[in-house]
Amino acid sequence: MRSPTTAIGIDIGGTKTAVALVNDAGTVLDRHSFPTEADLGFPRAVERLIGTIHQIRAASLTRGTTIGIGIGCAGPVDPRLGLINNPFTLPGWDRCDIVSPLRNAFGLPVVLENDADAAAMGECWVGAGRGCDPVVMLTFGTGVGGAIIHQGRIQRGVDGEHPELGHLVVRPDGPECYCGTRGCLESIASGTAIALAGAASGFASTRAVFEASTAGDPRASAIVQQAVDAVATAAWTLFHTLLPQRLILGGGIMDTEYPRFAAVARHLDPATQFTRGKVDLARATLGNDAGLLGAARLAWLAATREP
Amino acid sequence: MRSPTTAIGIDIGGTKTAVALVNDAGTVLDRHSFPTEADLGFPRAVERLIGTIHQIRAASLTRGTTIGIGIGCAGPVDPRLGLINNPFTLPGWDRCDIVSPLRNAFGLPVVLENDADAAAMGECWVGAGRGCDPVVMLTFGTGVGGAIIHQGRIQRGVDGEHPELGHLVVRPDGPECYCGTRGCLESIASGTAIALAGAASGFASTRAVFEASTAGDPRASAIVQQAVDAVATAAWTLFHTLLPQRLILGGGIMDTEYPRFAAVARHLDPATQFTRGKVDLARATLGNDAGLLGAARLAWLAATREP
Repeated sequence: MRSPTTAIGIDIGGTKTAVALVNDAGTVLDRHSFPTEADLGFPRAVERLIGTIHQIRAASLTRGTTIGIGIGCAGPVDPRLGLINNPFTLPGWDRCDIVSPLRNAFGLPVVLENDADAAAMGECWVGAGRGCDPVVMLTFGTGVGGAIIHQGRIQRGVDGEHPELGHLVVRPDGPECYCGTRGCLESIASGTAIALAGAASGFASTRAVFEASTAGDPRASAIVQQAVDAVATAAWTLFHTLLPQRLILGGGIMDTEYPRFAAVARHLDPATQFTRGKVDLARATLGNDAGLLGAARLAWLAATREP
Repeated sequence: MRSPTTAIGIDIGGTKTAVALVNDAGTVLDRHSFPTEADLGFPRAVERLIGTIHQIRAASLTRGTTIGIGIGCAGPVDPRLGLINNPFTLPGWDRCDIVSPLRNAFGLPVVLENDADAAAMGECWVGAGRGCDPVVMLTFGTGVGGAIIHQGRIQRGVDGEHPELGHLVVRPDGPECYCGTRGCLESIASGTAIALAGAASGFASTRAVFEASTAGDPRASAIVQQAVDAVATAAWTLFHTLLPQRLILGGGIMDTEYPRFAAVARHLDPATQFTRGKVDLARATLGNDAGLLGAARLAWLAATREP
């Protein structure tokens, strides 16, 4: 029996770093995770990452056939230079080169992408976006992130910049956002936005707002309705600008609340004169593994074809 | 002196059809135009087109080196099957194959695209989008059209569908649009929308609304301000989703009114946390020639590389 080819997928978040050995069918063969502890410094994190990869490869029967290392990291990152540049959730890691030390340690190709792009690649590989093109993914957590996968590749803008889909405008009279405008998707439908609107009515958290809405509280229901409407408007705009075969909604909020959002968005399709029957909506299926799997997939793409 | 390589560019509109011989530097060497007269039937239009191309090639010193024929046509069109399918402005031309008869008549590769995509290709070749990537172009006329050029190619959605950028939402409480939603860009900033809003205040045309606004009429100014705000919101959304290096505004309205729109959009750049200094706005420079030139460019691309 031949050893399967594998790649290492890494998901670096503000809290946790996960490392996995993934086979070419998108199955996680082994995984380890540890606290990111960005404040203890970048060199220590790199050292721990290298140790973890050695450990995983040593434990695996497939060592020697790993074809590359892919990293999805909480952005901003610079994929071309391999730099993490995230003073927000990885403080102290400004313009830190994560690619070179791993390449030097293992003699393998190493690619870096932001976590939203990695997660979307994962969903397109073995999750909700499988077989679809193009795919747009929105991730609803503390903020709202997004990614576009077009013909199997990550779509970028000028200078290779990552799209900021959370900041498309859904209601120009909406709340102010740090992005510089009012009423962008993130300002209404992110966990932070829902918690902030809820706090004004005495709710303790995003979760509390959703629970009170389910229980029929009118103030909570109004906040949830605004978020649902914002997602529906964003979906309309994305359906008409990018015409994705599938729009995937993921992130912590969608894990529990997806049906509310899908119900409204389902009214869009019969309404439209243009995209009817061509675009659809789905919930992300890989959960926290999307980033790990997408990072491994990116390692494969880097190892097997031109960027 | 060697004969320059040329391509035939064709622009088929509801009113007029233009045919040009274009060299590889994007210069129109010769051109003819005639009324489209769609109601006289598709076979007659094809016959006239073939006659005009023969005439232009016969008159040219460069005949024999024409590498292909590109057609930009008022959409919807099906580029893959070469079909025009536009019951709106080309009545009677439903699912008419324009590509085969021209290919058979001249033995040259023939490509068909919708006119918005052709115009954007033209602007990217020798107009306002030259040297920029990606480029988004919005065209403001009777409706609002749009196109995305990414890495030199027309960006399409699922099933090769053309993006409908005029129908991204800018104000969800705005006017109803035939597209199926409220407050899309076209419903507020198209010539039709401005004329409709103006008619309610006694203005005779889109032009009359802009003129009255310039003269200080408050009702006209309010209508124009809504259109300007709609374009600013759409620009923000496009800057954050597609991150074009340049957003080009074209069409009849922008020929005269561009400065009003650019003035507001210029406030966007300093405001944004994400795209500052990376994206900009420009007026289309090729006017009615954009479609012709872009069609010729598409003929080159088809003749010289894989689709």
